[in-house]
Amino acid sequence: MYDVIIIGSGPAGLSASVYAKRAKMDVMVIEKEPFSGGQIVNTECVDNYLGLNGTSGYELATKFREHADSLEVPFVTGEVIRLSKQESSWICNMKNGDAFETKNVVIATGARYRHLNVSGEEELKGAGVSYCATCDGAFFRNKDVVVVGGGDVAIGDALYLANLCNKVYLVHRRDTFRAANVLVERMKETGNIEFLPFHEVREIQGSGMVQSVHIVNNQTQEENDLIVSGVFVAVGMEPETSFVNGMVKLDDAGYIVADETGVTSENGIYVAGDVRTKVLRQVSTAVSDGANVIASIERNMSN
Amino acid sequence: MYDVIIIGSGPAGLSASVYAKRAKMDVMVIEKEPFSGGQIVNTECVDNYLGLNGTSGYELATKFREHADSLEVPFVTGEVIRLSKQESSWICNMKNGDAFETKNVVIATGARYRHLNVSGEEELKGAGVSYCATCDGAFFRNKDVVVVGGGDVAIGDALYLANLCNKVYLVHRRDTFRAANVLVERMKETGNIEFLPFHEVREIQGSGMVQSVHIVNNQTQEENDLIVSGVFVAVGMEPETSFVNGMVKLDDAGYIVADETGVTSENGIYVAGDVRTKVLRQVSTAVSDGANVIASIERNMSN
Repeated sequence: MYDVIIIGSGPAGLSASVYAKRAKMDVMVIEKEPFSGGQIVNTECVDNYLGLNGTSGYELATKFREHADSLEVPFVTGEVIRLSKQESSWICNMKNGDAFETKNVVIATGARYRHLNVSGEEELKGAGVSYCATCDGAFFRNKDVVVVGGGDVAIGDALYLANLCNKVYLVHRRDTFRAANVLVERMKETGNIEFLPFHEVREIQGSGMVQSVHIVNNQTQEENDLIVSGVFVAVGMEPETSFVNGMVKLDDAGYIVADETGVTSENGIYVAGDVRTKVLRQVSTAVSDGANVIASIERNMSN
Repeated sequence: MYDVIIIGSGPAGLSASVYAKRAKMDVMVIEKEPFSGGQIVNTECVDNYLGLNGTSGYELATKFREHADSLEVPFVTGEVIRLSKQESSWICNMKNGDAFETKNVVIATGARYRHLNVSGEEELKGAGVSYCATCDGAFFRNKDVVVVGGGDVAIGDALYLANLCNKVYLVHRRDTFRAANVLVERMKETGNIEFLPFHEVREIQGSGMVQSVHIVNNQTQEENDLIVSGVFVAVGMEPETSFVNGMVKLDDAGYIVADETGVTSENGIYVAGDVRTKVLRQVSTAVSDGANVIASIERNMSN
């Protein structure tokens, strides 16, 4: 019987493991892949985690994991497929048939950026293709970029990038938006944003670095190339909550509902990082969540 | 006219400055002392900021400041004594008579731990005297320690430390508590916590490291020495909000009321770090606040 099992080994899960160990809890981390770090592993450069600027995502992930290792946090590789509730504990049921019992569960499984699934996207990820303007925008100062999407994040990204970049194309498959009207109005008034409604990205082109984006008008079938250095894909995220299966309250987009304390609708289940309902999904906010969630468990275990 | 002036250069203020610069805001940091880092400057060792374990507080403060310097964040040394509201901006009035105008203010002035003001306390700070059990508890594994105070934090600290330490004395000047009853009950049931009501600390003793604490019973005047390695002072904090002077909503203890987004009761005033109402005051939660607050300003400036 563990005090706490942490599902996920990104910045939130690793931070939680450090706080749990320092609080002398009997803790274990379950990670799906045989390496830690979550999304940052594939990030070219993380430049906004205070004190560790100019670090590649891989390096940062390594430092984070080493921190947990220095405290002898135990890790298990595998996939949790179901949580089952016991009288005063939880069972984490694994895909391989294993089962682990714990007093508390921290869900830190993160969220995945939705991809366009077009040619060139995977190859040029981190070489011009980005899924986070706040993270990577500063690398595209005075350059031309494309933002793809029509939600709040896409429009927000376009506005953010318009302030940094020479020119921003906004490619959206419709001419209507899921984004807030104030954002859309402001986007339309911004001189260096060109809005391309009814357009879809067919291919991202470039050797080594993004050089252009091949788009098509889905009304006229007219094709075109946009010469750009960056492509910001903002077509939504998918939180990794499939295994939760009704056990805790989710919002409409599938995120687990909790404030910064990470306390969910269910006793003994806590949430940290990108998989939680929150406004800003960053390494620093995930690391903070990891600290908060263990403090919440401590408070509850004292009751 | 600045986009944002950040008051305070601890982890929250420095993180906010990095996010502001990366968003190409016209930003300035006002710091009271001619060095950055806030409380951590005087912390022996910060071991729970993910990725930078085993770092002295001074080293960590230096790394944090270097991150801001690498982005050419401008710093001014001085004390803000008053904020005055203009039609759509704020003036930061300085003690030396200077005044700076800005569209947005981030208050990141932190909070100070209240001290006992007894002999030995200042000299042995970081050498056995601590103001944060979550931060420093792990350094006192299997040792004997004293906690001083009677609030939620004091009792929470005693419980936290009881799990790590050999023995915990709880020294409190009364026999009643400001802390929640459940915590007090649990404290009384914990075998290795010895509660000493009606006691006050007169002196902290030791050469180089804490060796004992001299206490007196304030009813009988009986004096006693407790042989301990650590003294955890938990007699409250004082948020640095004197200059705010009714401009934003504070809670009863003087903290600026805001959730993780840092949005206060007043347009254009934001809050980050220990000076905000929050449950857990740590380097990681302050750094996260710095990121959140700039994202909130971006959203508001886009509206």
